Amino acid sequence: MEKLIQILSRLPGLGHRSARRIALYLLRHREGLMLPLADALRQVAQDIRACEFCGNFDMISPCQICTDTRREEGTLCVVEDLADLWAIERANIFRGRYHVLGGALSAIDGRGPEQLGIGALVERVKNNAIHEVILATNATVEGQATAHYITDALSMTGIKISRLAFGIPIGGELDYLDDGTLATALAARQAV
Amino acid sequence: MEKLIQILSRLPGLGHRSARRIALYLLRHREGLMLPLADALRQVAQDIRACEFCGNFDMISPCQICTDTRREEGTLCVVEDLADLWAIERANIFRGRYHVLGGALSAIDGRGPEQLGIGALVERVKNNAIHEVILATNATVEGQATAHYITDALSMTGIKISRLAFGIPIGGELDYLDDGTLATALAARQAV
Repeated sequence: MEKLIQILSRLPGLGHRSARRIALYLLRHREGLMLPLADALRQVAQDIRACEFCGNFDMISPCQICTDTRREEGTLCVVEDLADLWAIERANIFRGRYHVLGGALSAIDGRGPEQLGIGALVERVKNNAIHEVILATNATVEGQATAHYITDALSMTGIKISRLAFGIPIGGELDYLDDGTLATALAARQAV
Repeated sequence: MEKLIQILSRLPGLGHRSARRIALYLLRHREGLMLPLADALRQVAQDIRACEFCGNFDMISPCQICTDTRREEGTLCVVEDLADLWAIERANIFRGRYHVLGGALSAIDGRGPEQLGIGALVERVKNNAIHEVILATNATVEGQATAHYITDALSMTGIKISRLAFGIPIGGELDYLDDGTLATALAARQAV
């Protein structure tokens, strides 16, 4: 029991108290929740693998996105993380292919260009008929550094490289925005 | 994968977004976290059972608290929930035995005296050498109703029944306390 709580408390967003609460709740719902969860965990751990091309997690490799012929092969969206890929897929706004880095450059966490497989990304861009790379890394210091690094690494290919726009989020009120966002939005202002 | 996220999001305190985050984190830590969690869940679901006397969850029944001869047999602390028992045990302030109701009386949730096993509690008090019952239900409407009901049910046994004190929590600042707590603390004021 202590071990279960200890494992649960290592999950992101959970502390010791919420882990205890979840463990108790699971004990009270053994058949309906606890055993199905154990099974689902085991099954996903077995069945899901990283796509050999883009790094997306799926039950098949190449993944469904990489094998979907209705998607544009020529546009590649580079994201830090699987969660970012899911976010873009949920928004249903992009019909190209992805490349999941698995993080951003970070000296503290010991993630350099090799760990992110940026070499493999450059190879992929070179060897396929890709005409645009969209950098969709996060708007954090690490995300931007990663975007810069990839831009440099791809510069000699001559391929079009673009970056998600920075600015005021839709629905955002100026009063509540941080100075960085405001300054970026002002600097990137567009003629109407 | 969708199924795993869906099960996770049914846990208390987790929404769809945090469930997704946890699922991704688990996928990234398959060996270190995902499979151990699946094993721990399965094992706890198998091994842990409710104590036949007090309702505490343990690997043995009667549980370790009920079989511990160094604990006073004559004092019975009635709590709503296993989490409450753990809280009292953590504070290390009580050396008697427990009785876990498994909730509070609640018409909305369909929990009456039978569901809480209050009859069994009365039997237990009658048939054992118990000289004091401490009601440690929550200070909520349901918890107080439950305490009243148990007080009534035990009244003919003539046993001493007590209730946790209500008042200002230690470290509490009057300015931040709700009116109910303040009123209770004032009404229950004690001579110094």
